Amino acid sequence: MSKKCIGVDVGGTTVKLGLFDVDGTVLDKWEVVTRKEDGGKNIIPDIAASIIAKLEEKNIDKADVVGAGMGVPGPVMDNGFVEKCVNLGWVKVNPADELSGLLGVPVKVGNDANVAALGEMWQGGGKGYTSLAAITLGTGVGAGIILDEKIVNGSKGMGGEVGHITVNADEQDKCNCGNRGCLEQYASATGIVKEAVRALAKSDKASVLRDIEGFSCKDVLDAAKAGDEVAASVVDHCMKYLASVMQQVSYICDPQIFVIGGGVSKAGQYLIDVIRKHYNSIAILKEEKADIALATLGNDAGIYGAARLILG
Amino acid sequence: MSKKCIGVDVGGTTVKLGLFDVDGTVLDKWEVVTRKEDGGKNIIPDIAASIIAKLEEKNIDKADVVGAGMGVPGPVMDNGFVEKCVNLGWVKVNPADELSGLLGVPVKVGNDANVAALGEMWQGGGKGYTSLAAITLGTGVGAGIILDEKIVNGSKGMGGEVGHITVNADEQDKCNCGNRGCLEQYASATGIVKEAVRALAKSDKASVLRDIEGFSCKDVLDAAKAGDEVAASVVDHCMKYLASVMQQVSYICDPQIFVIGGGVSKAGQYLIDVIRKHYNSIAILKEEKADIALATLGNDAGIYGAARLILG
Repeated sequence: MSKKCIGVDVGGTTVKLGLFDVDGTVLDKWEVVTRKEDGGKNIIPDIAASIIAKLEEKNIDKADVVGAGMGVPGPVMDNGFVEKCVNLGWVKVNPADELSGLLGVPVKVGNDANVAALGEMWQGGGKGYTSLAAITLGTGVGAGIILDEKIVNGSKGMGGEVGHITVNADEQDKCNCGNRGCLEQYASATGIVKEAVRALAKSDKASVLRDIEGFSCKDVLDAAKAGDEVAASVVDHCMKYLASVMQQVSYICDPQIFVIGGGVSKAGQYLIDVIRKHYNSIAILKEEKADIALATLGNDAGIYGAARLILG
Repeated sequence: MSKKCIGVDVGGTTVKLGLFDVDGTVLDKWEVVTRKEDGGKNIIPDIAASIIAKLEEKNIDKADVVGAGMGVPGPVMDNGFVEKCVNLGWVKVNPADELSGLLGVPVKVGNDANVAALGEMWQGGGKGYTSLAAITLGTGVGAGIILDEKIVNGSKGMGGEVGHITVNADEQDKCNCGNRGCLEQYASATGIVKEAVRALAKSDKASVLRDIEGFSCKDVLDAAKAGDEVAASVVDHCMKYLASVMQQVSYICDPQIFVIGGGVSKAGQYLIDVIRKHYNSIAILKEEKADIALATLGNDAGIYGAARLILG
């Protein structure tokens, strides 16, 4: 029997789990509820029980399981220690040690955004590459950076926190982080909607967006793709900020490829083309430009990456 | 006899060499001329001959030499291959293999700025740390980034090229790289002088700089330290740009410490205090801020780092 590995993606509402062959084939996917009460003390035992039941159901011997990887929503030290995980109620825990003790197989833990990046490298938009930056444009903007197939955690777990890089020193509105002008204020779904509202208020130009009450980021992107000038100019402006951060990433650690995911990336190749245009025009020192591709694993990136994490 | 290692720092004019104990004690330092003619084909044989002569002079057996490390002024691939090194005339060479063949000991090669960063980590301003960004403020601005004691070369050797990150999209003057608004245009010695000239032209404020024809960067820094308002505001403005790039580095790969070197850093603690003020105010997401220290090895950082490189 070929060796197996398990990927666990711990979210604030549900825990996603995946059983994989070590070659990256997914054999099963399932979920359990995240019980956050009592400082989240049930989360790891629940995960362990669910995995043990799954292995029994599939008649898989523990000796054939290389181990389990786990992504958690917060900073993780290189040794697996979690100082604080607000979304789960955890304070000063070592979930890797705990899960490993309950399962009897090796366990590694990483930050969920970083782990998802590893998933995209293994079986997603960055397959075949060994260094990448996976940028997620969702409600916020996060990233995971992989160099030589290893996650860049950073000394205090801040590796890949590109959403809060200051891209506009003139911004007056505050970001959730307390600073002003963070990338997240422009390149997230929320940011794109807000910039569209601003653009509409600033001019009298016709736009289909004026007829959609409470329009969404998808509305802005759809309008832009359909040729709406105001919407296209908003997307252009927001992606120019993203490209400026991609230049920084290239000039600091130079990954081979950027993989763009999250809800905003559903705009597809149109979005990649806008990003590419700005990136090429600003990253001029880099003769051979980095590749830019769409993420392909969606919400499964976390379980893929977690499974890959334990493979080392 | 304790084991030895050799550090080689290949510059466009001279090659600096150092003989070290593996504990980091320097035993001897010397130089040879860099013969760039004929595509630089004499450079490696000259280095080999000089090292062999030194070992004979010191009665050191080759069996006691762990190996040699070498820093070269250009991008180096992870496998030691150098596509092009303009300053030395090299095209498509593998200087590590060549020097190793001539010396009969292992040789590793890295980019000189990256190697110097490793030197500062080993025996300089970053001693005791395992991850750092060493930023050199000289004629230009360069950096070497070390994570988990390993140099970040980047996929195309662009790791640490922070001098050409765009920090001012409104700049009209071109940088040498062809872009506009690079960090180097403000935080280098040249940049500081230029910004001082601009500041003097923009106002009628009194400044000692008005009495110094063709003032230098040192003049600007000395005036700033002595309380000259115009000079102090120029230094403040230029270091604010540097701090913005340090925030980016922290939010991308989160080193423990920034080590500031190069001619501009001779301004000492005054400069660090200005940088610290701006860094703290912009890197607010990072609860425990990175340390910021002066480089201490000066021009010797290259030979120290090269020697450290071969120790792995």
